[in-house]
Amino acid sequence: MSARNILLLSSSRVHGYEYLEYAQKDINNLFRKNNVSKVLFIPYALKDHDKYLATVESVLSKWGYDVQGIHKGDPKTLVEHAEAIFIGGGNTFVLLKALYDHGLVELIRHRVLHEGIPYLGSSAGTNVATKSIATTNDMPIVYPPSFEGLQLVPFNINPHYIDHDPTSKHKGETREERILQYQELSHAGIVIGLREGCTLLIEGNSMILKGLSRSRLFIPGKSPEEIEVDTDLSYLL
Amino acid sequence: MSARNILLLSSSRVHGYEYLEYAQKDINNLFRKNNVSKVLFIPYALKDHDKYLATVESVLSKWGYDVQGIHKGDPKTLVEHAEAIFIGGGNTFVLLKALYDHGLVELIRHRVLHEGIPYLGSSAGTNVATKSIATTNDMPIVYPPSFEGLQLVPFNINPHYIDHDPTSKHKGETREERILQYQELSHAGIVIGLREGCTLLIEGNSMILKGLSRSRLFIPGKSPEEIEVDTDLSYLL
Ligand SMILES: [Ca+2]
Ligand SMILES: [Ca+2]
Repeated sequence: MSARNILLLSSSRVHGYEYLEYAQKDINNLFRKNNVSKVLFIPYALKDHDKYLATVESVLSKWGYDVQGIHKGDPKTLVEHAEAIFIGGGNTFVLLKALYDHGLVELIRHRVLHEGIPYLGSSAGTNVATKSIATTNDMPIVYPPSFEGLQLVPFNINPHYIDHDPTSKHKGETREERILQYQELSHAGIVIGLREGCTLLIEGNSMILKGLSRSRLFIPGKSPEEIEVDTDLSYLL
Repeated sequence: MSARNILLLSSSRVHGYEYLEYAQKDINNLFRKNNVSKVLFIPYALKDHDKYLATVESVLSKWGYDVQGIHKGDPKTLVEHAEAIFIGGGNTFVLLKALYDHGLVELIRHRVLHEGIPYLGSSAGTNVATKSIATTNDMPIVYPPSFEGLQLVPFNINPHYIDHDPTSKHKGETREERILQYQELSHAGIVIGLREGCTLLIEGNSMILKGLSRSRLFIPGKSPEEIEVDTDLSYLL
């Protein structure tokens, strides 16, 4: 697994920043280290693919990258020839179903894990990169053939992780309660709660928490713990 | 479908009330009208069935009902002989998978729609009573064989519906945005956002919004609208 070049964002939008801006330096590092000039964008998580592509293109082109939308050609061929892949957020179920429907799950996994092409994921694009989509926040608005993700990393991520507001009168489960309910099940493993502004950089067998904010680590059978930015998390791989 | 006697709660717990207390009058009406003395409780949405049964039993026994846990005997036999069914909240995916695994989906539907036994649902137990679980707030921690619900009503419900806090800096989708994303899809239909404290009473072909709070109605292609308590919603059946 030493070929990995992966950056997983909690979200593309963070309060006080333009789209992707808070992660600009890390995204540039990821792509430039790997001589990427053209990025294959996968907009499946939102309904309007052209509009989504235009949003992403308007940012990444300013940073010096060509952006191609996977919906503009044959998806498999485009993945086979991609220099780098970016999967954006939206609905995780819609996204994962589309990846399965287009036969892309094994192919993307192979290109990222064995050929080392950079993978950038945000929100739903981060959920699908993990072991499974078990800890997405999205609603199950379509039925995918499996909840198994691309399995680029061996744990789950909860993007947009949010702390309970102690003044709230709302009685729905808190995010932490939802994750702990998952970890009561025998098939559950580690979950990283990525607060907005958190990112994970995975290079080969190294993983580091980057970004603007601490994240929260849930290991089954242990109390949740706070992880500071720049912490080496390679032991979770 | 004139046999229906159904009460769907957004939640069992509401700020300022004991467990189920805010709906006590409507629950009693539902059960007493139908001469119910014994309630079959289905605790599948939470992991500890005995503990969950004890919580429910401690309340309903004070109100004069015997409570039986479905996990204490043969599930199908207990449903076949039930005077009334109560399905409580927890994780909607875990609950729905258990209903399918035990072969209860068709059976409960038949007993409620054709034999008229009272059905009380709360939170996840409300989600599974609808067309599908597409608008649950829960995480997909297990993979059910389908997202189709008991279909006791022909629409979807979002329990624990919550309005966007305009002061929030969080960039995750709001509840309304999630529901509208669902309604972009051609298979989606009507969604009722039941705020905590809202309930729906369905008797035969009549449906009325009850409880403590307005709810929010989402009809595909129309702007969401607020529905006041005591509104007749029979036209949605
Ligand atoms: Ca999302
Ligand atoms: Ca729940």
